[in-house]
Amino acid sequence: MRKIEHIGIAVNSLELSNVLFEKLFGTPPYKQEEVESEGVKTSFFMNGPNKIELLEATNSNSSIAKFLEKKGEGIHHIAFDVQDILAEIDRLKNEGFVVLNETPKKGADNKLVAFLHPKSTNGVLIELCQEMR
Amino acid sequence: MRKIEHIGIAVNSLELSNVLFEKLFGTPPYKQEEVESEGVKTSFFMNGPNKIELLEATNSNSSIAKFLEKKGEGIHHIAFDVQDILAEIDRLKNEGFVVLNETPKKGADNKLVAFLHPKSTNGVLIELCQEMR
Repeated sequence: MRKIEHIGIAVNSLELSNVLFEKLFGTPPYKQEEVESEGVKTSFFMNGPNKIELLEATNSNSSIAKFLEKKGEGIHHIAFDVQDILAEIDRLKNEGFVVLNETPKKGADNKLVAFLHPKSTNGVLIELCQEMR
Repeated sequence: MRKIEHIGIAVNSLELSNVLFEKLFGTPPYKQEEVESEGVKTSFFMNGPNKIELLEATNSNSSIAKFLEKKGEGIHHIAFDVQDILAEIDRLKNEGFVVLNETPKKGADNKLVAFLHPKSTNGVLIELCQEMR
C-alpha cells in the first residue's frame, strides 16, 4: 500500500458531475472511460499524487446502480496503489481480510484490481490496484 | 487543492479499528489525538503522501455519533490539502459551493479546516485543510 491511488465517487450523471468537479479542482478530467464488464462510465481527475474517479452506472445491474439506489450519490470506494497485487492479496487474506477477487480483474485506467469486503474493513470498500505493465 | 491530505473514517471503537488498520497498512498509527470541541478521538495512519484518520465519537452530540447512528461505520469525509485556506474558501464560494465554515476552525493534526456542504458536492463531505504555521 504505497498511497491512495484514487477515491471512487458514485454519481447520477457524469456530465453534471464533471462540471462540478472541474470547478472544485480548477481543471477538467484527464480521461473518460467505459468499463463494460462493470456497467460503468468513469472520468478521472488528477489531484497531485492522487486521483478522483467519478462513476456513473450504464445499466441497472451495475454495482454502482445498486449503490446509488440504496445510498444515493457519495463516496463508493478507496483504492490503494500496490506494487504486487498478488502478494498483497495473500498478505491481507492471512491477516483475516475477506478478498472479493482472489484473481485480480482488469479495471479502469490500465489497472489490475481486487476488492476487500467492507464487512472486514469497518464498512469501507477498499480496492487494491496495480498498474498493468 | 494539492493532494488528498487524508480520508476520515467513522468507527465505533478506535481501539478495535487501530488493530484492523495496522494490519491493513502493516504499520501502527503515528498519532492519536482528542479534539474536544468536535467530540472526537482520532488516530492517524500514514500512507505514502496521504493519511487515514479514524474518528470515534466521545459524546452523543458529536457529528461522528450522529453519522454512526444514521449510516454506520464507513468513510466520513475527504480532506484536501490547500496552501491558502482563505483564498480557497473565496474561490469555492464564487464557484457556487456551500462553505460550512467561512472562518476556518482548528482541527486535528495541527490544521486549519473548513468543510463544504455535501449537498453542493455530490453527497461527499469535503474538508479543506491547511497546515498551521
